[in-house]
Amino acid sequence: MPELRRDPITGDWVIIASERAKRPSDFAGHSPGKSDDEKGGGKSCPFCPGNETMTPPEIMAFRHPGSQRNGPGWWVRVVPNKFPALGIEGDLNKTGFGMYDWMNGVGAHEVIIETPEHDRQLSFLENRQIEDVLWAYRARYLDLKKDPRLKYILVFRNYGKVAGASLSHPHSQLVATPIIPGVVANELQGARRYAEYRDRCVFCDIVRQEQDEEKRLVTENEHFVVFEPYASRTPFETWIVPKRHASSFAAISAEEQTSFAGILGETLRRLHICLDDPPYNYNIHTAPCDNDADAEFHWHLSISPRLTIAAGFEMGTGIYINVTPPEAAAEYLREVSVQAASSTKEESAVGSEKSGE
Amino acid sequence: MPELRRDPITGDWVIIASERAKRPSDFAGHSPGKSDDEKGGGKSCPFCPGNETMTPPEIMAFRHPGSQRNGPGWWVRVVPNKFPALGIEGDLNKTGFGMYDWMNGVGAHEVIIETPEHDRQLSFLENRQIEDVLWAYRARYLDLKKDPRLKYILVFRNYGKVAGASLSHPHSQLVATPIIPGVVANELQGARRYAEYRDRCVFCDIVRQEQDEEKRLVTENEHFVVFEPYASRTPFETWIVPKRHASSFAAISAEEQTSFAGILGETLRRLHICLDDPPYNYNIHTAPCDNDADAEFHWHLSISPRLTIAAGFEMGTGIYINVTPPEAAAEYLREVSVQAASSTKEESAVGSEKSGE
Repeated sequence: MPELRRDPITGDWVIIASERAKRPSDFAGHSPGKSDDEKGGGKSCPFCPGNETMTPPEIMAFRHPGSQRNGPGWWVRVVPNKFPALGIEGDLNKTGFGMYDWMNGVGAHEVIIETPEHDRQLSFLENRQIEDVLWAYRARYLDLKKDPRLKYILVFRNYGKVAGASLSHPHSQLVATPIIPGVVANELQGARRYAEYRDRCVFCDIVRQEQDEEKRLVTENEHFVVFEPYASRTPFETWIVPKRHASSFAAISAEEQTSFAGILGETLRRLHICLDDPPYNYNIHTAPCDNDADAEFHWHLSISPRLTIAAGFEMGTGIYINVTPPEAAAEYLREVSVQAASSTKEESAVGSEKSGE
Repeated sequence: MPELRRDPITGDWVIIASERAKRPSDFAGHSPGKSDDEKGGGKSCPFCPGNETMTPPEIMAFRHPGSQRNGPGWWVRVVPNKFPALGIEGDLNKTGFGMYDWMNGVGAHEVIIETPEHDRQLSFLENRQIEDVLWAYRARYLDLKKDPRLKYILVFRNYGKVAGASLSHPHSQLVATPIIPGVVANELQGARRYAEYRDRCVFCDIVRQEQDEEKRLVTENEHFVVFEPYASRTPFETWIVPKRHASSFAAISAEEQTSFAGILGETLRRLHICLDDPPYNYNIHTAPCDNDADAEFHWHLSISPRLTIAAGFEMGTGIYINVTPPEAAAEYLREVSVQAASSTKEESAVGSEKSGE
């Protein structure tokens, strides 16, 4: 069973995933993040149709009528992670060893398989399909939220081996934790501090200023705005923020979900074209489970292309050095041919050029 | 001039290094951290003897008598970084743009060239030479500390391209910032919180518990203890902590410095042998400049081998997933042949085996 250990100085929690335990020789070659890059999928890919028995039994799936659980016929499939960072079984135990705090690693770690097609990236799926991936995120969130042991649920996506993806078949992940993570606590605290002074939502104010200034705006539609944040930590960091204030992404309406799928796909295609298929991570920032109607948070999705390396300076200070000002990044992303970025056909989008260059 | 921008939600500062500005095509290939890996050094390496004019004019150097400033004849040389993250010139200006906070990027960014020998890694230098590198760190710290614009000084080392090193000639770096960085503020706050309850130093207590438990201990000498921290964020994270309580690394005595050089070299050699020359970052954690006799901090050096990738989960939560329990890592590091690890000859150390395996 994984463990949670707390840093006695900073209070940060760390997961010691002892079941995944690695010996020094497992790190040989120093290429962290080697992908099992089984091009074309097929027999060896546990996420390809026909290989359903290579994963733990499925938790849910969107399936064609008449197809069998744990068999082919699905278009989105959710399974437990085979090597979970946190395990779903057992009571939450907390104890101490001398000055050190410990908790057993209770939680959930699931994989959302986004399509049966091994080589078709999320960004080039039909909007309907992206929307169903988002509905799967929400369904799993709402189900896990009922578990009183779980305090926070993070949906994230690692794309490309540099971004930590170990399998190339399109998938996202979800981890539910028995604590409110430090990054989340910081964002909540920041939003509360701002609201105390001004009685307004900091995210709503950011959206307003970005729409007014325009220079960091990438695109927008009826329900969402996409921009490069003022203090972008990495080149081409990109946020998708709903215009309607809501603290939980699960509060999304059907109309908003369609709109979200459309703008998520478009934004990922803009990044794909502009940066030539970059590795990236995206995360959904949402309020903690037990208070997800909290008026002081405002859910959003952040995308971080992995173009540079956080090194000793970033580790020692927490201050990121960003070599591409967000104003310049936004301009590059706006210049991407809208036609190409709006296309749902990978072929046409990959082949097209940026306009104006 | 670089800028400092503050995240309006978390309050974290980001450096926008506009002079290093990168366009999308500069990121092509998606291999962040490509090294100018000029094996053997020679004409193209700005840190090799004879190429002193390829760097900005030197700030200080340990030189043989009769040698000329900015010419060969040095054994440790400190120069300004040619592409500084923060610039030393000008007054510190602070302003706001609507809701956003801004500061111009005043600070210092220096490079400590550790040896004239291009292919001789820090870990395999003579102890005397490592000690002189440490004296250079201290000399630069004490000089920059006089500048009232500077609030914090970080000494760090990036080794290997995966760890962000862009040049392979052995070097460390120093960055002085006009703010107290978030990571440092957190550690200080944690140490203070602990001291408030117990009237003891949290680091002194950690050293005591590690010495008692032994299972995470790697090695120790008269003045320092080396261990894998209880809540190690990454496999083989290793700390070197002075036994004598002192909040600033500049408070080190001559005897302690010799001891520090010895145990730093030995620890890096243990990691080198155990993990087959891993990429790593190390940082010196020390108190902020204006209060560096503050009794509630305890300086130390942390080494983080770069064996795994922090991905979407780590970015979204701040919770690290560590696949090697520190107890196991400590055992592997203890098992390294002490003779090999204590050797100052690269040849003998690289060729030797771990004992007991």
